[in-house]
Amino acid sequence: MSAIEKQIEGVVDTILQDYQTGREIDRMESFRQPDKDVIIDTIEKLRRILFPGYFRDKTYRIYNAKHTLSTLIEDVMFNLSRQIELVIQDSGKTEEDAREICLSFLRKIPQIRSVVQTDLQAAYDGDPAATSMAEVIFSYPGLFAITVYRLAHELYALNVPMIPRIMTEYAHSITGIDIHPGATIGQYFFIDHGTGIVIGETTIIGQNVKVYQGVTLGGLSTRGGQNLRGKRRHPTIEDNVTIYANASILGGETVIGQGCVIGASAFITKSVPPCTTVSMKTQELQMKPHGNCTGCKNFEQ
Amino acid sequence: MSAIEKQIEGVVDTILQDYQTGREIDRMESFRQPDKDVIIDTIEKLRRILFPGYFRDKTYRIYNAKHTLSTLIEDVMFNLSRQIELVIQDSGKTEEDAREICLSFLRKIPQIRSVVQTDLQAAYDGDPAATSMAEVIFSYPGLFAITVYRLAHELYALNVPMIPRIMTEYAHSITGIDIHPGATIGQYFFIDHGTGIVIGETTIIGQNVKVYQGVTLGGLSTRGGQNLRGKRRHPTIEDNVTIYANASILGGETVIGQGCVIGASAFITKSVPPCTTVSMKTQELQMKPHGNCTGCKNFEQ
Amino acid sequence: MSAIEKQIEGVVDTILQDYQTGREIDRMESFRQPDKDVIIDTIEKLRRILFPGYFRDKTYRIYNAKHTLSTLIEDVMFNLSRQIELVIQDSGKTEEDAREICLSFLRKIPQIRSVVQTDLQAAYDGDPAATSMAEVIFSYPGLFAITVYRLAHELYALNVPMIPRIMTEYAHSITGIDIHPGATIGQYFFIDHGTGIVIGETTIIGQNVKVYQGVTLGGLSTRGGQNLRGKRRHPTIEDNVTIYANASILGGETVIGQGCVIGASAFITKSVPPCTTVSMKTQELQMKPHGNCTGCKNFEQ
Repeated sequence: MSAIEKQIEGVVDTILQDYQTGREIDRMESFRQPDKDVIIDTIEKLRRILFPGYFRDKTYRIYNAKHTLSTLIEDVMFNLSRQIELVIQDSGKTEEDAREICLSFLRKIPQIRSVVQTDLQAAYDGDPAATSMAEVIFSYPGLFAITVYRLAHELYALNVPMIPRIMTEYAHSITGIDIHPGATIGQYFFIDHGTGIVIGETTIIGQNVKVYQGVTLGGLSTRGGQNLRGKRRHPTIEDNVTIYANASILGGETVIGQGCVIGASAFITKSVPPCTTVSMKTQELQMKPHGNCTGCKNFEQ
Repeated sequence: MSAIEKQIEGVVDTILQDYQTGREIDRMESFRQPDKDVIIDTIEKLRRILFPGYFRDKTYRIYNAKHTLSTLIEDVMFNLSRQIELVIQDSGKTEEDAREICLSFLRKIPQIRSVVQTDLQAAYDGDPAATSMAEVIFSYPGLFAITVYRLAHELYALNVPMIPRIMTEYAHSITGIDIHPGATIGQYFFIDHGTGIVIGETTIIGQNVKVYQGVTLGGLSTRGGQNLRGKRRHPTIEDNVTIYANASILGGETVIGQGCVIGASAFITKSVPPCTTVSMKTQELQMKPHGNCTGCKNFEQ
Repeated sequence: MSAIEKQIEGVVDTILQDYQTGREIDRMESFRQPDKDVIIDTIEKLRRILFPGYFRDKTYRIYNAKHTLSTLIEDVMFNLSRQIELVIQDSGKTEEDAREICLSFLRKIPQIRSVVQTDLQAAYDGDPAATSMAEVIFSYPGLFAITVYRLAHELYALNVPMIPRIMTEYAHSITGIDIHPGATIGQYFFIDHGTGIVIGETTIIGQNVKVYQGVTLGGLSTRGGQNLRGKRRHPTIEDNVTIYANASILGGETVIGQGCVIGASAFITKSVPPCTTVSMKTQELQMKPHGNCTGCKNFEQ
């Protein structure tokens, strides 16, 4: 055994010993854990099912719509059932239960499609830079994040642990838009740009709401930690509300009435009556010539 | 047929029926749509062409620079022409037109390289944490997003629909930096950190401009939706301007004069004369000992 | 040679000529540069080593823990040593030095694991939406970014150039959380949501600190550029501090005393004594019925 081989063996032994300390990080049963890659692959297959004409199926190369769909559905059924089984086994549920849950989920697809169609319409109508619906489907992070949320929310409603959050956090990693699968969101939902948006677990959003980048719909304080689990911590946004960039709306008792317009960067912790425009009083700014520029008209001032 | 097979067939039939309702989401001609994976692969190949010494070509393993470049260019030509053909076919254009557009684009590469070299220089000069140009190329999200924007902007200028936006949204998903391919941006452009930056379609940015994370160069209101398409909605930033983190500059008539310094979190909807430092008047803060800490000097206050 | 082949050859020749101008962008020695894909693959292998029970190894399919770990460690040793060799060669260091550095790094793994266990605990304790530790490991971007930072920081401490930054920028691209590998961060560190967080190179953070999305721990001004390299530019955050969403704390002389609570969107450039709650004085908002809504109670006001 060479010197380097011995040194590597030393490292291996030290780490193996470190695995024996019984902390959460030391758990070893990886085959009883869900597989994030399989869940992400399932999301991509579900998107192909939702938008049949937009994403080419490179694996199967079957041109018949029924055959393609059957293959996709069987694939999702096989893989997602297995993942559900893994996350429900600790609560005494079986393979059979997992299959039932997966079927219930798949039966929701037409309903999910009809809501996603409204989200697509809202994105196209709301953005002057959108040149076609196809462009929205192919390139808008907002529609991507909303679609994944709509799928994850149905699994969350079927009491599937862990998988819904893995799904929405996948969308978060792609888009910077963090929608908890527990949030309730009405149809015609539009997110523009989207990076930095946070929508908390107990948020309720009505129909035809528009939200821009950097908006937080969050809790007032989370110092309660695990004691707050299950309590209403996030705001209610009624129908037809527009929330411009970087506004923060916080607290479980905060209700933004229908038709409100919340200006950019507003910070709101109390309810707002319907049909109100809220805007920051113009921020006081200091403006002064900075004097380190030559040949500049400001010097004559 | 087993019970489960019947249930899956039921799901398939319901979804097939759901595809027949004639909505945008129900379009079926996926082979007439661009392929996002091919476009992303093309971006990566274009980056290898732009930075020949920084990214290893794992597919071809050809060590001769001319052979490597020829192979890359032929690959981009073949794939990108095909994608362009797909997105221009509805306006009556042909395979021949697509090839002409693609060639015009490829001929811009030396010009794109000379601008990207200035962006690289600006990133290195502007960031005390940068230890080498190579580090900037390998790890700075700002340079990545700007490079993809510079490529996409040339396709946008050649009136190619959809593909430029797919390209910049790919960069957005990697970096959190959302630059519309229609924006006009001068050389020596530097973005630091970058997450949350939004630069709208009709923005005009001069030379030697620095922008930090969370900055929005956006529209004042987008409630006009599709009616605003093509109108000037986003600001003008003149040469040598620095815009610190989370500042928002909004509106198509807003001009930030050359040499200005815009302070962090400033919210600006009116023009600023050249060589001006703009800063928030120090935000009023409430400070109070919170009294839930033991053994803390504050209790003596 | 067809017309199109000639045109492509013309493009190739023009670009080859463009490579001869001696700029940074024209460097050609790609086989002397680190390989980002290998570094990313190494991060994923290191995460499997840190969390042995959570990520399935699809390459090796070895069920024995010791064999799996040995294979992973040898793989990391082989690949990471080679990458380290590539980035240290310009300072006259050898393959042997690279191996020594890599071994020193691997020996830190038990120590890294014990700190990451505290970060895991802090995430679970701090978030009412967390339903299990496994969910935190699988889906929380904060834990992902902190884990990658903890690995990168050890390489940074061993004076390895470039690779630590490539590692944390990979985490940045996945999570929107930008932690410089040079930052010093105590145990029980919790990041919630995280998109838009920036933690600068010379930041010092104590134990048990919580940070929310959009927080900047940054420099006051970076106009000094390369002249500021190595100087203290970023703040000190003492133990048990909570910093809510979108707060900015700037400057190398700014110290946030232990136990402080920094409110959302606060903008701080001066030190704060221990155990102080800092909050924005409630932002002045203008509220007015906007009058373009029919059938709304506001009209009676």
